[in-house]
Amino acid sequence: MKIAVLGTGMVGKAIGTKLVKTDHQIMMGSREAKSAAGQEWLRSVDGKAKIGTFADAAAFGEIVFDCTSGANALPALRQAGAVNLSGKILIQVGNPLDTSKGMPPTLTICNTDSLGEQVQREFPGVRVVKALNTVNCDIMINPSRVPGDHDLFICGNDAAAKREVTDRLCEWFGWKAGNIIDLGDISNSRGTEMFLALWVRLWGTLGTPHFNIHVVPGK
Amino acid sequence: MKIAVLGTGMVGKAIGTKLVKTDHQIMMGSREAKSAAGQEWLRSVDGKAKIGTFADAAAFGEIVFDCTSGANALPALRQAGAVNLSGKILIQVGNPLDTSKGMPPTLTICNTDSLGEQVQREFPGVRVVKALNTVNCDIMINPSRVPGDHDLFICGNDAAAKREVTDRLCEWFGWKAGNIIDLGDISNSRGTEMFLALWVRLWGTLGTPHFNIHVVPGK
Repeated sequence: MKIAVLGTGMVGKAIGTKLVKTDHQIMMGSREAKSAAGQEWLRSVDGKAKIGTFADAAAFGEIVFDCTSGANALPALRQAGAVNLSGKILIQVGNPLDTSKGMPPTLTICNTDSLGEQVQREFPGVRVVKALNTVNCDIMINPSRVPGDHDLFICGNDAAAKREVTDRLCEWFGWKAGNIIDLGDISNSRGTEMFLALWVRLWGTLGTPHFNIHVVPGK
Repeated sequence: MKIAVLGTGMVGKAIGTKLVKTDHQIMMGSREAKSAAGQEWLRSVDGKAKIGTFADAAAFGEIVFDCTSGANALPALRQAGAVNLSGKILIQVGNPLDTSKGMPPTLTICNTDSLGEQVQREFPGVRVVKALNTVNCDIMINPSRVPGDHDLFICGNDAAAKREVTDRLCEWFGWKAGNIIDLGDISNSRGTEMFLALWVRLWGTLGTPHFNIHVVPGK
């Protein structure tokens, strides 16, 4: 399968590096096709991937990870192009965090809207699935780094797309299907993005971003 | 010990009913001293408590639970009176949920402020501890209803007050100290209140409010 990863920041590189080790073909996209970050990453994986612009990668991928930072997501997806993304699953990972005023960050969108919804509204022909945004990127690609049961949350308007994303996260990264909780339509991005307000504080309290939460049902 | 519970809604009644079974003296406070909800509750506990106005209860209590709904918290605390609350621990439980537009609710305050902070700012002489607001009231008073480890979050500006609240939640309700996570000062209420956006969606997905989360540290 051809997989595109938009964004060559920490999250995009982590996901790209993990996927390069599979049998799939990977293309990383960034604003400039020959970005220094992209070139450096390509060397780190012994050239076993392609790199290009957001549009190159979106056109290449059969499934697309949006690993751009929250503030850059919509501009990057516009560069990727609605035509190149049309009909494809877009795994929307970034959170709308504003770190400009220090830590802990606030959210640039919340409560009555979310980044996941904004992306789906602007790209109605794309099968947007919000996923992976409630854990650090090291946990995204290696859930066994956290022992025992701990959970991911996904949401989106396309049930088949969510089933496929669930299967892929299990296959590629080692998540257990029973630990992936489908919250419903894309408006539920508000819940998972607003969880970041607690997540960043837990990071501060625990002194590490390497943790996750498990939802424990009552009796 | 004399314990006041402000608010005769679902949360206040659950906490009051649990505390009546201890050796402590309990007084419930509401807007009107002889409110129907208060009288009905008093009969349900065989008259083994006092009821009065918010001011009566605040003056009575050595420690005060604020179980008013988020929208009513500041008006109720003004009625309780800064003088009656001065120097006391106030366990601030309510969340600023707006259910007027249906489910899931939005928050009336979030991101750059929180109800916990608003209460502490308006009542600087009160030792405000935000606690219990991330679980359903049945779990608050009976954590064993959720099996195994699951966590509470507390925050506040007064370290001694947080230690005392931790001890009391263990003693009165059966929480384990190791499952109570101190996030720091009262501004961390933003994190626990915004978690409600995920909590209400998990309630919808799981079909029950009887669950909690456990923070699982990574390796």
